[in-house]
Amino acid sequence: MLDKNNEFIFLPLGGSNEIGMNLNLYGYGPESDRKWIIVDVGVTFGDVTTPGVDVICPDPSFLEGENILAIVLTHAHEDHIGAIGWLWDWVKAPVYSTAFTHCLIIDKLREHNVLDDMEHHLVAPGDVISIGPFLVEYINITHSIPEANGVLIKTDLGSVMHTGDWKLDHNPIATAPTQISRIKEIGKAGVLAMVCDSTNVFVDGEAGSESDVLIALKETILIQKQKVAVACFASNVARVDTVMRIAQEAGRHVCLVGRSMHRITAAARQVGLLADLPMPISESEASKLDDNRVLYICTGSQGEPRAALSRIADDHHPLVSFGEGDVCIFSSRVIPGNEIPIRSLQNRLSDKGVEIITEKDRPGIHVSGHPCRDELIQMMDWVKPEIVIPTHGERRHIIKHAQLAQSVGIRQTITPKNGDMVKLAPNQATIIDEVPSGRLYVDGGILVPQGAEALRERRHAAHNGMIFISFALNSKSRLASIVDVRALGMAFETDEQISDQLERIGNQIEDMIRALGQDQKEDDASLEPLVIRLVKKMAKSIWDRKPLVEVIILRL
Amino acid sequence: MLDKNNEFIFLPLGGSNEIGMNLNLYGYGPESDRKWIIVDVGVTFGDVTTPGVDVICPDPSFLEGENILAIVLTHAHEDHIGAIGWLWDWVKAPVYSTAFTHCLIIDKLREHNVLDDMEHHLVAPGDVISIGPFLVEYINITHSIPEANGVLIKTDLGSVMHTGDWKLDHNPIATAPTQISRIKEIGKAGVLAMVCDSTNVFVDGEAGSESDVLIALKETILIQKQKVAVACFASNVARVDTVMRIAQEAGRHVCLVGRSMHRITAAARQVGLLADLPMPISESEASKLDDNRVLYICTGSQGEPRAALSRIADDHHPLVSFGEGDVCIFSSRVIPGNEIPIRSLQNRLSDKGVEIITEKDRPGIHVSGHPCRDELIQMMDWVKPEIVIPTHGERRHIIKHAQLAQSVGIRQTITPKNGDMVKLAPNQATIIDEVPSGRLYVDGGILVPQGAEALRERRHAAHNGMIFISFALNSKSRLASIVDVRALGMAFETDEQISDQLERIGNQIEDMIRALGQDQKEDDASLEPLVIRLVKKMAKSIWDRKPLVEVIILRL
Repeated sequence: MLDKNNEFIFLPLGGSNEIGMNLNLYGYGPESDRKWIIVDVGVTFGDVTTPGVDVICPDPSFLEGENILAIVLTHAHEDHIGAIGWLWDWVKAPVYSTAFTHCLIIDKLREHNVLDDMEHHLVAPGDVISIGPFLVEYINITHSIPEANGVLIKTDLGSVMHTGDWKLDHNPIATAPTQISRIKEIGKAGVLAMVCDSTNVFVDGEAGSESDVLIALKETILIQKQKVAVACFASNVARVDTVMRIAQEAGRHVCLVGRSMHRITAAARQVGLLADLPMPISESEASKLDDNRVLYICTGSQGEPRAALSRIADDHHPLVSFGEGDVCIFSSRVIPGNEIPIRSLQNRLSDKGVEIITEKDRPGIHVSGHPCRDELIQMMDWVKPEIVIPTHGERRHIIKHAQLAQSVGIRQTITPKNGDMVKLAPNQATIIDEVPSGRLYVDGGILVPQGAEALRERRHAAHNGMIFISFALNSKSRLASIVDVRALGMAFETDEQISDQLERIGNQIEDMIRALGQDQKEDDASLEPLVIRLVKKMAKSIWDRKPLVEVIILRL
Repeated sequence: MLDKNNEFIFLPLGGSNEIGMNLNLYGYGPESDRKWIIVDVGVTFGDVTTPGVDVICPDPSFLEGENILAIVLTHAHEDHIGAIGWLWDWVKAPVYSTAFTHCLIIDKLREHNVLDDMEHHLVAPGDVISIGPFLVEYINITHSIPEANGVLIKTDLGSVMHTGDWKLDHNPIATAPTQISRIKEIGKAGVLAMVCDSTNVFVDGEAGSESDVLIALKETILIQKQKVAVACFASNVARVDTVMRIAQEAGRHVCLVGRSMHRITAAARQVGLLADLPMPISESEASKLDDNRVLYICTGSQGEPRAALSRIADDHHPLVSFGEGDVCIFSSRVIPGNEIPIRSLQNRLSDKGVEIITEKDRPGIHVSGHPCRDELIQMMDWVKPEIVIPTHGERRHIIKHAQLAQSVGIRQTITPKNGDMVKLAPNQATIIDEVPSGRLYVDGGILVPQGAEALRERRHAAHNGMIFISFALNSKSRLASIVDVRALGMAFETDEQISDQLERIGNQIEDMIRALGQDQKEDDASLEPLVIRLVKKMAKSIWDRKPLVEVIILRL
């Protein structure tokens, strides 16, 4: 029923200010009775700038009270599925995904005790699912994980090609080829808008095929005489398949090191991948073999301190050790933000005499899973959308992608940020509203808003240190104890200097309290700020810093 | 006097585990009476992994009591001169440098109140200085700063070519050309060892000339119609000269933004550079001109939060603002470790509609100041040293550089780390000792060792948060107050939850104290650890964290 109040809406809650943390909404209906489907529910990861926070989710608060018909998952990367457990209370709806993705969301829902709550629908490429006013078609597309899909979202106000993450791999491994002819048909039938991956918009040419990696890695590995480790993303089953095949040819047994390597290859085998390859051997079996008889596939390519490779580099792994003349191949990219830990890892391995081979030393041992400029242009040519809406990018990527679309004649581009509500139809597409959006940090097992006090306090303490003050006041608000001053995270030249400075601060507080009027001392709310102000002033003069100051006044 | 106990020593205290923080020692004499010259006294900079620490110096403690004859400075980059003020008490000796470098160390010594203490000797390329058993020759070499030099250090046990930082710029700007014919002569006369810059050992080819940058930048700038900002390193006077010349051609006035831009161009003018160029205009003059009449040269290319460009991006600059259609050109590289702040800066500018142009978008608008592989090979061919000792590199760079030297037939390579004492002669060169080395952090205005408690506590607090406990005990060690519990940097879902959890911790401490025997309560040294253990256990169960716990027991 074509109601003139009906609108077709695109609303990104994640992925449109960053690469990762994808959460996209498509809405249909009049404002008063809109129905939504959610495409992907991903996380992004904390880095050195978010101490104590490893996992970051999109803020789903807009979804409160909204009518959500379905969660449609394009593929199983963490930045597309990782938040489903954390945000289940908000996103809760029937979940659609292919089998491999299904394997990998089960643990997440189980960890949050909501697995039984999930109604899951298994889909396969080509399936068209009717969800309320939407028809959703899964279209197989190549990426760096098995069973990646774009989704065509059709309504009576037009259709959107939501590409998900993709590239054009003409010889894919461990996944089906891109359904190019179907994409062309879709383009011919007319597409209102394409919401498309912007990750590699600054890179010319094409991303390249996993099959090319096979050739480059084979050349690199077959000449090795000692231990070889390949570090790659566990979710890149094609890469794991490739390395396993090379191991066979090299007469080496494969040994997987790192928990996610085991978890994801198990999921791959469950859906029939890696089927013709020998089972990997255990770390203890590998440790008994000659150096040239084993090939390790390791997690930790991003320098993660607790992952396999870092533990090996630090001699903390009980069964795997590397030394002079062994080789570590990084068949992976540097995820922006991880430069410092990766460099540190590589220097630690180098220091043990391990030869490091990266994409820079040996081009071709890694290819990206995201479309470069030629591929983006190709896809626009096939889909011929009236509107291109770049997503999966930082601000720079999204703006550059829009410029690229304009340069090849796309009629309209829209560059929403997270929380910008885009009316796609009817009439001129445009941003019509801004809804709450942002990041929720998983902090000490709890979801807290991005600007929450806890992380702000920790960052403040990290830069400026902390001073704690405690003293007791009797019933007449006279000092009944010493003023005890503790400094943490404040630098001192000598232990005597510490005592002197802290004593000086304590004495000044005592003097101040003695000089105060009774009414100023009786109430913590007036006394505490005075103490804090004095301490901050002294800290400024001693360290030129503004430490976190906490005052505990004990009333006897 | 050739004494068979005399040894010729090379000892890096900085620069040989990192790019930057250069402090090299050359020693001569028997072990009991060794004389030293210091080549460069540089800092490195803190990054996101060292909160509260901006400046890091090499640990000079080995120098205590040693006989230091001179400080020889190769050039004025911070990683070669920045520690001279901080470490003056240890390195104190007559200082040799060219005029430009002299201009830039004066402020550093003045800030540390030791300027009057310095005996400075002005040198020029070609000068040979006799310093005790050493003859030191300054050899002009091109780099990314005016007046960069290699130094030839001659003793009767052989000579070392210490390259300093360099590249082969065949058309240098604002500095003299490399003294290639002199370098060849030196090679012909025989060189025992070359201590050489390893920064770009992973980069094929040549670094390129500042004159090529002129061409690429001109093409990029002349077509602009609105405001243009060029971000570059202030110390790269060639780049500033280049941009000023392009501004002239474009009919734009130059406006310098950022303190170090003013400081270093002033030093450049003092030594006769930038002499034929018009004086820059002030920010307030620039703000009154049309957009296409001004060209800003800004500091802050590394995303430094307090530098010019960040302040402009955040609309915090009182006189300079950028918006839709303006252009910001990053004529600079990404210094490893600064990736996150640079990306953030570029996204903030993009978000204002500012077009960002980097080396990636427009190759040629920046060239490195360090030698790439072809240049390293060229230098080895000219100098023909018996031994190559790579420096100015992380572990990976140093090892790779040694491999490169071996591949072109260098007889011996030595790869010391900071603190490794290399006997160069007599007899076989080899590492003979390891002396104290490391990093001193400038933390709150004080030099503290790398592993010092302050930074460790701040990092711990940053990741895990802090809990403070205070209570009062009377003369019988009975509780005389509540147990006050404060949590900072700990996440809570609601305010009620905070109070509940903290109250629960307080109650458990009270219960514990009541149950303790008198002897356990009487002594803080036994009571405090019990409280800390209990709080840590509860924190683990509540947040799965190990916060910093500080307990203040007030004895009445």
